[in-house]
Amino acid sequence: MQSNQPSMEKPLILVTNDDSLKAPGIRALIDILRPLGKVVVVAPDRPQSGTAHAVTIAHMLRIDLVYRETDYEEYACNGTPADCVKMAYKIVMGRRPDFIFSGINHGTNSSINIFYSGTMAAVLEGALTGVPAVGFSLNNYSLNADFNPSRKYVREIAEKTIANGLPKGICLNVNIPDVPTSMIKGIRVCRQAEGTWQEDFDEREDPNGRKYYWMKGVYVNNGNGEDTDQWALENNYVAIVPVQPDLTAVQAIEPLQHWF
Amino acid sequence: MQSNQPSMEKPLILVTNDDSLKAPGIRALIDILRPLGKVVVVAPDRPQSGTAHAVTIAHMLRIDLVYRETDYEEYACNGTPADCVKMAYKIVMGRRPDFIFSGINHGTNSSINIFYSGTMAAVLEGALTGVPAVGFSLNNYSLNADFNPSRKYVREIAEKTIANGLPKGICLNVNIPDVPTSMIKGIRVCRQAEGTWQEDFDEREDPNGRKYYWMKGVYVNNGNGEDTDQWALENNYVAIVPVQPDLTAVQAIEPLQHWF
Repeated sequence: MQSNQPSMEKPLILVTNDDSLKAPGIRALIDILRPLGKVVVVAPDRPQSGTAHAVTIAHMLRIDLVYRETDYEEYACNGTPADCVKMAYKIVMGRRPDFIFSGINHGTNSSINIFYSGTMAAVLEGALTGVPAVGFSLNNYSLNADFNPSRKYVREIAEKTIANGLPKGICLNVNIPDVPTSMIKGIRVCRQAEGTWQEDFDEREDPNGRKYYWMKGVYVNNGNGEDTDQWALENNYVAIVPVQPDLTAVQAIEPLQHWF
Repeated sequence: MQSNQPSMEKPLILVTNDDSLKAPGIRALIDILRPLGKVVVVAPDRPQSGTAHAVTIAHMLRIDLVYRETDYEEYACNGTPADCVKMAYKIVMGRRPDFIFSGINHGTNSSINIFYSGTMAAVLEGALTGVPAVGFSLNNYSLNADFNPSRKYVREIAEKTIANGLPKGICLNVNIPDVPTSMIKGIRVCRQAEGTWQEDFDEREDPNGRKYYWMKGVYVNNGNGEDTDQWALENNYVAIVPVQPDLTAVQAIEPLQHWF
């Protein structure tokens, strides 16, 4: 299942997402990226929203070629987005790609939503393995979301990433407002907003009278400034947060050393 | 299913993990924590290793009381560790607990393993919701791992966390070497080591001749210094990394602003 090596001129681009191969968001992203390189799509065969950075170790994985033409291949995987990246590297490409682009997600991954996001886990896999990677998300959860207004910005950011590369170990979390292109005010490079999910559950009863629950919940922003992705998104800017896979709270190291 | 409110003196402690309610690691942790407060355990009903910060939104959730006595309750949940925390808050306790302790994990969560860890996702849920939280992991993946040598350190760190609290939004990732207590040299507060997983898969064929794969892979440390958790662990120190749920690469914001 080894792919052909790319020609010298064309970068090898891995495309994935968490909404599955059939989601309109990934079809829009593929369409934008195909002129920019050799595109290999390895995406989940079913929706994997909210799977975060899960990897499949308790079950077996499958991967199937579903379509191939010149400089383009498409594979369906029964795993998570992180599984898709690892399988793409090892099983499909036999090497790490030049770039990873993930999305376009149906729904925002701004602020702390990055922690729950399968789309962004695939992007973090890039950062963890030295591959420049960008995740795109549209602030519209509907399967019928219109991705056309975001195309101009997705293309611009993809082109600049391919032209410039990214600093080592850094990936990008791009969130796009769900408004007509003419209303998008531009691009802002931001920090991740502070926020929280107010947990909530819908309690129901099955026909045997046993309770079960559906997870709900509401995102609560902590209103923390015009330099955040949440502010940018709410004010019709495309928000880019440079992301690194390091959770160390450096400022807390020294105070905690006094404990011991 | 509302718990009694705790008495003024005893903190309300939520205990969870990703190896399931039956794992020896969580039994050791419960045993250490029960003298320190009112303990409510909400843990997965089956192993959830590698589920990371996944939340269950495409399936329904269940939670069942399995044991109760004075100042102690135990619930099994069919979801992930992050689900367990959210259900504990909303369904079991009707409020956020005073502390969350997660583990003791069978296997290390040092370095970038934090991104794949269900144990640490539960702890990050604490940080995301303002609850001081600590995750404990033993550097031994076996179900038969011996947790006795680690007890002294788990107790000390839990007691200090309960006495001192943690800085707002900060949680702790504690990794413990798998050696006799007498060989543990002490505690070091560290930064998260840089590393990567070298992806690998075991390829097999089902009886119909169709290929399937088991995920394997080897952790590769990037050998980056005596101030890292990986170094501490390998040199028989208990490693504590203060963790914050913010992935912003602050140093990359300004350079990226020149792109647009």
